[in-house]
Amino acid sequence: MSLTNQRIDGKRLWDTLMGFAEIGATPKGGVRRLTLTDVDKRGRDRFKAECEALGLTVRVDAIGNMFARRAGRDPSRKPVLFGSHLDSQPSGGKFDGALGVLAGLEVMRSLNDLGIVTEAPLELINWTDEEGSRFGHSLMGSGVWAGVFGLDKANALTDTDGVTVGDALDAIGYRGSEPATPFPADAYFELHIEQGPLLEREGKQIGIVTGAQAQVWYDAVIIGQDSHAGTTPPSTRKDALVAAARIIDLVDRMMRARGDDGRGTVGQLHVLPNSRNVVPGEVRFSVEFRHPTDAEVDVLDAEFPPAAQAIADAAGVKLELTRLFRIPMQPFDPSCIDLVRQGAAKSGLSTRDIVSGAGHDAVYVARHVPTAMIFTPCKDGLSHNEAESIEPSEAEAGCQVLFEAVLARANRVI
Amino acid sequence: MSLTNQRIDGKRLWDTLMGFAEIGATPKGGVRRLTLTDVDKRGRDRFKAECEALGLTVRVDAIGNMFARRAGRDPSRKPVLFGSHLDSQPSGGKFDGALGVLAGLEVMRSLNDLGIVTEAPLELINWTDEEGSRFGHSLMGSGVWAGVFGLDKANALTDTDGVTVGDALDAIGYRGSEPATPFPADAYFELHIEQGPLLEREGKQIGIVTGAQAQVWYDAVIIGQDSHAGTTPPSTRKDALVAAARIIDLVDRMMRARGDDGRGTVGQLHVLPNSRNVVPGEVRFSVEFRHPTDAEVDVLDAEFPPAAQAIADAAGVKLELTRLFRIPMQPFDPSCIDLVRQGAAKSGLSTRDIVSGAGHDAVYVARHVPTAMIFTPCKDGLSHNEAESIEPSEAEAGCQVLFEAVLARANRVI
Repeated sequence: MSLTNQRIDGKRLWDTLMGFAEIGATPKGGVRRLTLTDVDKRGRDRFKAECEALGLTVRVDAIGNMFARRAGRDPSRKPVLFGSHLDSQPSGGKFDGALGVLAGLEVMRSLNDLGIVTEAPLELINWTDEEGSRFGHSLMGSGVWAGVFGLDKANALTDTDGVTVGDALDAIGYRGSEPATPFPADAYFELHIEQGPLLEREGKQIGIVTGAQAQVWYDAVIIGQDSHAGTTPPSTRKDALVAAARIIDLVDRMMRARGDDGRGTVGQLHVLPNSRNVVPGEVRFSVEFRHPTDAEVDVLDAEFPPAAQAIADAAGVKLELTRLFRIPMQPFDPSCIDLVRQGAAKSGLSTRDIVSGAGHDAVYVARHVPTAMIFTPCKDGLSHNEAESIEPSEAEAGCQVLFEAVLARANRVI
Repeated sequence: MSLTNQRIDGKRLWDTLMGFAEIGATPKGGVRRLTLTDVDKRGRDRFKAECEALGLTVRVDAIGNMFARRAGRDPSRKPVLFGSHLDSQPSGGKFDGALGVLAGLEVMRSLNDLGIVTEAPLELINWTDEEGSRFGHSLMGSGVWAGVFGLDKANALTDTDGVTVGDALDAIGYRGSEPATPFPADAYFELHIEQGPLLEREGKQIGIVTGAQAQVWYDAVIIGQDSHAGTTPPSTRKDALVAAARIIDLVDRMMRARGDDGRGTVGQLHVLPNSRNVVPGEVRFSVEFRHPTDAEVDVLDAEFPPAAQAIADAAGVKLELTRLFRIPMQPFDPSCIDLVRQGAAKSGLSTRDIVSGAGHDAVYVARHVPTAMIFTPCKDGLSHNEAESIEPSEAEAGCQVLFEAVLARANRVI
């Protein structure tokens, strides 16, 4: 398969992945490694020890992001960064995040084994709280680092037990002394599973990620009137769930009107009082749209609120729609993308250009550092699920491309 | 208002209602008196004491139903029964159930005050666990009594803490020695708030209840596939919530196709995994239809399952639809209905014939004893809600009609 003779060790990478998956392992074969918990601490401690065993210097910043630095031949050059995250969803899989960090570890090991000293220094990163499951704010560590939201605000976020991020950092000893702010860096590469079905469906080994989708997210609350299901005639009903159902259908239709690039999802929904024989008086739900182009998200953001309002009006209920945020399409850096493409070609791997539908730390890092991502297939496109699964050969292929891209970038003539 | 000079005491009835509402009173002005709890015991104890103070003999049967007997002149005659229930919803109102029992108490007091001895004996009943909120089985006491379900099965039902009905009966000392089975009785009358908007909307004081709606209830489970909201394209989505939404809309349309007599409700719905950025993989929800005629419920029961299945098939998800039960239309007894009509006319009250949309103990009692019900309006048709509200004059009117109907039945020439 490979046209290069500088190879990472696929078996060692797989063994490392399986070893880490034991930290927070669930009975169904998944992982529960919630950010800043004792389980996360065990993962961080092991990661730190492995890095230090390779001779890397580990720094921790104020939000717990970890940077493991390998010196370059030219200390004046800006480092080449790569990494991902070691935290998981509550019922997550073995590879979402962990693949990018542990493939980065394998890159460091292979460089050592091959006796390679790169021109530029290298830094392998474990970002804090990518998933957002515990404190409700995804991409937290990279978001604070990139200045998307403030450190104080992040430190004050609480989990469902009332524990703050700041307290949780202190509790596991990972509130570091480095400032959580961008520093001069030459590039950032992130390897991640696709979390979608495209690569598998088309039989491609590597996704060359050209950017991340534009998104708009809303919170919706419908206020109707709860009343007895047996006695309330149609003419006097104000059924919040019927109105919500029609808006869910609207979201799906607006997604499908954009073909296979469209994304529109109501993922979370709560009914009140949620009793069999009571007409629902209140429904709260999430709405999100994503698309590879800003223009289509502009249209969705312009057309969805009035269309949803018309449904609510027709049903005689009140709709409160709050736009949580809009993220513009984030293009990745052409020169970094090209290095990923060259790395895949050099390794003889089949590829497909792809726009990331998921949020990734790379999306925030890209605001300050030239960035690209590498996707590998995952079984049935499944992720955020204990059944998340990839093949050892897929992990190896992704890691090899990461190795090639990092090496080429760090040794480029400048 | 009244054309009769035998009057119940409206103020005393209201004071009794307000006094009972203190037992389990909630901060928002409602009542939480869950069946077979210590709060329910306090209500039962007070009811028993008030009955015994009037010279009534109180029996308790094996499921905790309470019967307070007033002797008639002719001990060979079958008793005339009346009553309702003292338990409430978790966030219930002051009148749902309590009105029927406490108006019955006022009937007993008025008979004493007026020095009336009826020909037939009278029995005032407090049925156990009408609401079904704690053990998940509504109309439990009257259902066991009427033989609709077995005593052993009822005793084995558990609440969310694992406490059984049998244990709860023992804990509050209300597992009685009488068999919970029908005994010879001449009639049963139940006064209840309408729990709907029809009487208020039409400005009628009394609803003459001619029977109870036919019903069919289902449990629905939709199994799709949970997947990442950002990465899963429309063509590979199996969104359980979108399919559920279309079935909710179907239920509403099937209801409305039957005009103002139709009832169709999805009151309870749970989404899994219920996460913002995950396409829902599973949705569980309730479906119920009601109509005054068996024929329309037959049509609904024939047409809904295949129509829902077609929606699921089109969405590429699996639908498991379980019919929980069908209750045929329960007509009430023409002679008892006529006594309610006469009682309202004698009292100069405006009336409307009405079919009960809610389930009531009377529906099960009617399988063994000639039965009728009396409805009074409630504000905005609201019930199963702490804001449930009626006027003192409305309680008085309903109680007066109950008095007239009971008296006429107990003194009829046979």
